[in-house]
Amino acid sequence: MTPDAPAAFTASAASTDERLARAALTRTVEPGDEHAGRWIRRYGATGFLERLLGPDDGRLDDDTRSGDHAHTDRDPFPGTGRKRVASWRLRATAAEPARDLDTVHALGGRFLIPGDTEWPRQLDDLGDARPIGLWFRGPADLRTWALRSVALVGARACTPYGAHIATDLATGLAGKGWVVVSGAAYGIDAAAHRGALAADGATVAVLACGVDVPYPRGHDRLIRRITEQGLVAGELPPGSHPTPSRFILRNRVIAALTRGTVVVEAQHRSGSLSTARAAARLGRHTMGVPGPATSALSAGVHELLRGDATLVTDAEEIIELVGDMGQLAPARRGPVLPRDLLAPATAHVLEAVPARGPTPTTVIAQRAGIHPDETLAKLYELHSLGFVERYGAGWQLTNSAAQASNARRGGT
Amino acid sequence: MTPDAPAAFTASAASTDERLARAALTRTVEPGDEHAGRWIRRYGATGFLERLLGPDDGRLDDDTRSGDHAHTDRDPFPGTGRKRVASWRLRATAAEPARDLDTVHALGGRFLIPGDTEWPRQLDDLGDARPIGLWFRGPADLRTWALRSVALVGARACTPYGAHIATDLATGLAGKGWVVVSGAAYGIDAAAHRGALAADGATVAVLACGVDVPYPRGHDRLIRRITEQGLVAGELPPGSHPTPSRFILRNRVIAALTRGTVVVEAQHRSGSLSTARAAARLGRHTMGVPGPATSALSAGVHELLRGDATLVTDAEEIIELVGDMGQLAPARRGPVLPRDLLAPATAHVLEAVPARGPTPTTVIAQRAGIHPDETLAKLYELHSLGFVERYGAGWQLTNSAAQASNARRGGT
Repeated sequence: MTPDAPAAFTASAASTDERLARAALTRTVEPGDEHAGRWIRRYGATGFLERLLGPDDGRLDDDTRSGDHAHTDRDPFPGTGRKRVASWRLRATAAEPARDLDTVHALGGRFLIPGDTEWPRQLDDLGDARPIGLWFRGPADLRTWALRSVALVGARACTPYGAHIATDLATGLAGKGWVVVSGAAYGIDAAAHRGALAADGATVAVLACGVDVPYPRGHDRLIRRITEQGLVAGELPPGSHPTPSRFILRNRVIAALTRGTVVVEAQHRSGSLSTARAAARLGRHTMGVPGPATSALSAGVHELLRGDATLVTDAEEIIELVGDMGQLAPARRGPVLPRDLLAPATAHVLEAVPARGPTPTTVIAQRAGIHPDETLAKLYELHSLGFVERYGAGWQLTNSAAQASNARRGGT
Repeated sequence: MTPDAPAAFTASAASTDERLARAALTRTVEPGDEHAGRWIRRYGATGFLERLLGPDDGRLDDDTRSGDHAHTDRDPFPGTGRKRVASWRLRATAAEPARDLDTVHALGGRFLIPGDTEWPRQLDDLGDARPIGLWFRGPADLRTWALRSVALVGARACTPYGAHIATDLATGLAGKGWVVVSGAAYGIDAAAHRGALAADGATVAVLACGVDVPYPRGHDRLIRRITEQGLVAGELPPGSHPTPSRFILRNRVIAALTRGTVVVEAQHRSGSLSTARAAARLGRHTMGVPGPATSALSAGVHELLRGDATLVTDAEEIIELVGDMGQLAPARRGPVLPRDLLAPATAHVLEAVPARGPTPTTVIAQRAGIHPDETLAKLYELHSLGFVERYGAGWQLTNSAAQASNARRGGT
């Protein structure tokens, strides 16, 4: 983790070698490749990469000296097709992970890997299809944001009704302190991001390309705005372009990151349904917004709703479902960790929240002397951690945080 | 049963006394009164009526001679409020069941009671709230029709979208040989009846008033048309007018008669939802047609769909759900009773169905020399009994009926 990387609280156990290896592997392996995931589980990321970069005869395989095969016959990746391995080798050799890391750091971004404090552990539910790492940009702590997040996805060619609903749900979710996750596509995705941004809320765009590639082109400005007020994340290294299969595989990350997926409009066999199906497989809530029975753009959603998905018509109904967070819901029971463990910048924003009454983000930013976008990001982290809550357009301390604050003041 | 009453096959075990007593009780007791239902279960309809018409001291009670109460203190209906019993007595004394029966017979109608062959045994699921009897008009056999029926209900003040959907579903159901049951109200109900009628289909209107009272007034012609091509039924004796509670109690009959209830549009707390709730309590399928999340007229339906109701968008989805009829589905396995047991008029229509190819109702009516409305009614009975099936706009013999028909011809 770079020194200037924001984090709600400190530390990363991951070594530089591990981070470089995983960065190289994001350029080597397509997202969600379970073959690669299995080898990484077996050999570790560095071990797997070494084997790809080593001679093509399995010399590095642990089992080399046992067995009765001739040396040159040994397959270092049994069960994985030679063609796939050849492509991995080719791409691993060409990878320049240090350069990729520099590129993203220069944009104010970073590369997150399993073991980092900020790594969203929900992604581990994907098993061998877990992202090798996540590239991303934006001022917030992904892990705490993801704890209170909902995916809003749907058709690119949506109807005005669908766009209206997506905006409305995103505004409502943001107003209650929930993070809106989507894919930055045209249509429903864009309406969801814009609704959250307009409500001074938090939003995450998970891309099917590099975080430095504005795709679709028409969303250049929107994506830039999300990197300022929210987070833009993706599995692919800088400069990578999307492909149809990358879009579909990206959807599993959206599903895994969030506590539930809401499909707003989708035709039969729409890609948005794959997000909902992934969410269901991962034990996340799947939800759908109904539309006219006569609308082809609602047919896919209705199909979902005839299965196990829950019908929702407003943000309250979504929160009612995903808000039952059990272990994950510190906000309901007050802060889960002492103030002293907060990262300095986060603690600084917390200090700037007045003891009484809801206060707008801009006022808190002024008091803290920090840019409003970064302040908002910290406030969302503090929200997930149970220190503050949204109230109308402003923020206030939670009851337990206010009590702790009083006790501190009483003690000094 | 009057000699001219149509029936798919013959016979009624019920006595004239029983029929007269039940006719009188429909004028005495409000629909769905479970107190009355309990006394009828205990004393029989005639016994209950005798007790109501007898002296007000419980003299007729079986237990009169036991117990230590003074003769005049005895309550003949313990647990039922005196006020309610007083009202029963008053109305029982004023009842003229023979005149009511004559009135309805003069209109070509009849009065059906438990024990009649045509009594729809599904109604017995209502327990003590089972209708005491059913007054009705129309050329069809209610029991066989009810076996393949679906309720389509919804808001009076529906939107054009709702009316379109109701018409469309009714047309689709009728086209597959299903009977559409509704309440003859403005809005969704009317659209459902009209859709079925327009598709040359079968429809049943269950009224909350006498079957000779066209309510609402504006549906005078629609209800008359249903008495010709379908059935109009109700628990209330001729001349009775609807009340708010009668509307609600009528809904349980619609729910019990049918294999499932579809709500097309309904606001929160709409009366149509009571039909769906009754259907759910009775173990029938409950279904709802989604609409825009922003429409107040779909809010009640969406509420249902967030519970156990199934989302449906077309007739096929409804039939997929209710069509799994198990024991009740003779049509799928061919006829359940030999031709020889069919009532003569029904057998006559069956003879008029050509051995090959689908044939329109009007052609079958010409061949049989019977009015098309009556022919259609018999065809629906034959459909429920597994002899014929709808195919496009026409009718044809089922495979097994065709084989039986060939065998007969071969044998003579």
